[in-house]
Amino acid sequence: MACPSRIAGAALRRARCSRVPLQQAARLHPAVQVRWTGSTSATSEPHQPDSKDSVKGKPAPSKTVKFTTESYPHLKRDSKFAELTPDHVKYFKELLGSQSAVIDGVTSDASDDIEAFNSDWMRKFRGHTKLVLKPGSTEEVSKILKYCNDNMLAVVPQGGNSGLVGGSVPVFDEIVVNMSRMNKIRSFDEVSGILVVDGGVILEVADNFLQEKNYVFPLDLGAKGSCHIGGNVATNAGGLRLLRYGSLHGNVLGIEAVLPDGTIVDDLCKLRKNNTGYDLKQLFIGGEGTIGIITGVSIVCPQNSPAMNVAYFGLESFEKCQQAFREAKGQLSEILSAFELMDGRSQNILKQAINKKLPLEGDYPFYCLIETRGSNSDHDSEKLSAFLEHVMGEEIVADGVLAQDQTQMAELWSCREGITECLGHWGGVYKYDLSIPLEELYQLVDDTRDRLTKAGLVGDSDEYPVVDVVGYGHMGDSNLHLNIPTRRFDKAVEKELEPFVYEWVAKRNGSISAEHGLGLTKKPYIGYSRSETMVRLMKQIKDTFDPNGIMNPYKYI
Amino acid sequence: MACPSRIAGAALRRARCSRVPLQQAARLHPAVQVRWTGSTSATSEPHQPDSKDSVKGKPAPSKTVKFTTESYPHLKRDSKFAELTPDHVKYFKELLGSQSAVIDGVTSDASDDIEAFNSDWMRKFRGHTKLVLKPGSTEEVSKILKYCNDNMLAVVPQGGNSGLVGGSVPVFDEIVVNMSRMNKIRSFDEVSGILVVDGGVILEVADNFLQEKNYVFPLDLGAKGSCHIGGNVATNAGGLRLLRYGSLHGNVLGIEAVLPDGTIVDDLCKLRKNNTGYDLKQLFIGGEGTIGIITGVSIVCPQNSPAMNVAYFGLESFEKCQQAFREAKGQLSEILSAFELMDGRSQNILKQAINKKLPLEGDYPFYCLIETRGSNSDHDSEKLSAFLEHVMGEEIVADGVLAQDQTQMAELWSCREGITECLGHWGGVYKYDLSIPLEELYQLVDDTRDRLTKAGLVGDSDEYPVVDVVGYGHMGDSNLHLNIPTRRFDKAVEKELEPFVYEWVAKRNGSISAEHGLGLTKKPYIGYSRSETMVRLMKQIKDTFDPNGIMNPYKYI
Repeated sequence: MACPSRIAGAALRRARCSRVPLQQAARLHPAVQVRWTGSTSATSEPHQPDSKDSVKGKPAPSKTVKFTTESYPHLKRDSKFAELTPDHVKYFKELLGSQSAVIDGVTSDASDDIEAFNSDWMRKFRGHTKLVLKPGSTEEVSKILKYCNDNMLAVVPQGGNSGLVGGSVPVFDEIVVNMSRMNKIRSFDEVSGILVVDGGVILEVADNFLQEKNYVFPLDLGAKGSCHIGGNVATNAGGLRLLRYGSLHGNVLGIEAVLPDGTIVDDLCKLRKNNTGYDLKQLFIGGEGTIGIITGVSIVCPQNSPAMNVAYFGLESFEKCQQAFREAKGQLSEILSAFELMDGRSQNILKQAINKKLPLEGDYPFYCLIETRGSNSDHDSEKLSAFLEHVMGEEIVADGVLAQDQTQMAELWSCREGITECLGHWGGVYKYDLSIPLEELYQLVDDTRDRLTKAGLVGDSDEYPVVDVVGYGHMGDSNLHLNIPTRRFDKAVEKELEPFVYEWVAKRNGSISAEHGLGLTKKPYIGYSRSETMVRLMKQIKDTFDPNGIMNPYKYI
Repeated sequence: MACPSRIAGAALRRARCSRVPLQQAARLHPAVQVRWTGSTSATSEPHQPDSKDSVKGKPAPSKTVKFTTESYPHLKRDSKFAELTPDHVKYFKELLGSQSAVIDGVTSDASDDIEAFNSDWMRKFRGHTKLVLKPGSTEEVSKILKYCNDNMLAVVPQGGNSGLVGGSVPVFDEIVVNMSRMNKIRSFDEVSGILVVDGGVILEVADNFLQEKNYVFPLDLGAKGSCHIGGNVATNAGGLRLLRYGSLHGNVLGIEAVLPDGTIVDDLCKLRKNNTGYDLKQLFIGGEGTIGIITGVSIVCPQNSPAMNVAYFGLESFEKCQQAFREAKGQLSEILSAFELMDGRSQNILKQAINKKLPLEGDYPFYCLIETRGSNSDHDSEKLSAFLEHVMGEEIVADGVLAQDQTQMAELWSCREGITECLGHWGGVYKYDLSIPLEELYQLVDDTRDRLTKAGLVGDSDEYPVVDVVGYGHMGDSNLHLNIPTRRFDKAVEKELEPFVYEWVAKRNGSISAEHGLGLTKKPYIGYSRSETMVRLMKQIKDTFDPNGIMNPYKYI
């Protein structure tokens, strides 16, 4: 750990050790209303954390979840798809065995069992499937898809079902192909760090396996206890380690996937270098199950970093945040593992909603959280101390604290991770997950606040629907979470927000979905982030791989 | 720099400072015969270094270079392509201006000028083009390709023409689209490190630009003084920094490219996260100019690392090399930037060919070179010292030296980089650039040596064609360079080598082209690294993007 005595500036103190571990803090407000972009219904929904939040406590879906077909009444079932018959079910039972591998609401009453696969963990989406298949091998996946393709049966691939955009549950009666039985770690090379797993291996299982060998999975996210690696790859999950270890496009070395016609794509390369033709696996990374099902993943994993530090700062402006980020990149360089931004309003909301005592006494318009991970704690502390001396001395940072132990680290992280939870305190939240060029990252928050204020929608009393407009996110990845906590959902607010936000982002060549993907909810908005040419080319890719369109219909592009 | 006194083991010494800088050493044997895989001719060829060697001194191509159509007589011009007419030339001159943008051997005598674009820098390949176009903008590239597509004129995109597999020069009369006039740095964000450049920007120009801003391009290779970034991306160049910074698939954030029909693909994203549809740009990374021309690249660049160390070891077995690599990954972790392998035979060849005095006195079956790059030289030296103490104390490493200054670093690197040059000392070289799972990386060298020895082809005297069988390469990337220096090219040797080497690699799911691509020379061998399914899918991609097949024909897949 860093030695506080070595850090200049009396204001830089040890973090107050309030002994509230992260998990506990995150449990204070278990049920709040959250509004996600792309939904026009004002239904009360449970808390939906972003990917940094813990979603280990997955609520059991219930029949009271509204059907997606009610929330999105414009969606119509494509009549080209066949309806399930007892003969279809018979085929699958013979193939997979009915006991554990087929949940069937066609020839038997399995309506309770099936609901867990029809609904997502947020209880926002609910489909009408009558058949869930759980293949145990790549060959079984192949036979399933070939049969579905030959018989025009639509399919939804399903991993841990922890997505945020409705991509992993059916809309109508699509057959769910759940990958949970394909959960084997196939191989690990302790010298190269290359891991090969089934698509259905849970991220945390793989990470625990690696930690024992002093390695770490190059991806981490709140849903790690339930999400599947195949799903992570299919949705190109970003998560907590992207700043340090890069994206899945760089780390995934190979995939095994099954195409809709049953063809097995055997690209499970275990090599860091392989320049022999188009890198087709990249299309499956972020393809959201629309061109095939990922049954195996090969990925290069970094060594574990035993040393970790966390610091939390107050800053006077967004320009200072940018300066601090640049200095952190320069001075912390190879050990910088997170640089998170929280505006002052987001921190105030922690105080207002859960009476949280913040680590710093003063109020600042901006806060940053820095994490380092390295192989030598003395070296890391020294680097961090030098960095802190510099940013304090140059008045880039106005005040700051440095965690002294694991509990304090968790406490500082809770100032970032606890925001999502607290935003729902007043009722609902309009949420946007956006990538914006760094220079203008925060401007959107100011512009949105100005716009809603001018429209007379923001205020302290109950007559105003909007409580505040706040921004926070992964500054290191230029990823902003724009959030508008409200007392009630209001068409006037929605009218001011959309298409304003999307147009604002599009003008800056930003992305309307930074890390969550398109799924069902973002599908209509792709035009704000992709040109017609790009969408046309994407559709050609879809048609090439899935000419019958059976894979995850009604979603993506 | 590390303090030698802190390192246990009397054998670990300062590197002898022989004051022979790398460039000088590399010039000692300027003209040797090298045989590359895939060539069946025994023509004398100039030295062709691998991508780690300096190719700054690009020799002027001459008319004496053998035509590719003579070296590869089985290649036949595809009659679907139109032949150039004066009308075609007139169109291009009006579009681009004849002075600097069109070199025309159809309506005027430009045969001398045109040869520089017909032949590669190795003087191994030579095409028959009569027209070179140098567009100055993306729009001009678009108009060129549209016209070519409409008129069935075949096209070869050409960057710095520094490739090793004949991908960037024509075979027959394909029009060369040379990108050298598109050489602008478009933008750089000093906070995020995101650089946007024209495709024709020379790698070294971009790197120098970045160094001034304390950043570094995440790719480095010997040809940096001439290769274009567009070409690097099109060939998915690996190079020297891959172990540290990862591949272009992870670092390239966006591309702008022109499809054969003139469509401009505007995917020049400047965001680290953008999950809005299939990541189509990945198909252009390593697409070798077969589906379009890359006109712009957006790439995330890391901060520069001011501290650098280089060490050189002798080891008793390949198992010890693997142990050393694992320890280096663990202990040097975030600062490890290169881990190179050289077998004892490759180091002996340095002694035999150029009488090089090696850094260590004893003879060892294996040598490794380690480089670190970090932000703090004291910390890095401490980590390296601890690592050295450990690997010496545990007898993983038998002996070693640590460079004390830039000159010594260059001297140690020359023990790795000088190999390629010296291999040609006796006549020719059979060369293979392969990826092999790390555990079996070196086994191929032993197996090949055994095979050739059993066939009575290896020996010390002139009666034997083969001098030795040696292996070296980027151990950190599992990339082996298998080299067979010979006194003369001999069909008996070729018969023993092929398909033996490819079959051996295929059995281990290795790659027959790790970092050099397919181009013309590796095209026939893709089946050893890719299944029929993969090749079929790749052909579908090719047909989707380039239905007329005008882009870089006769190559790739």
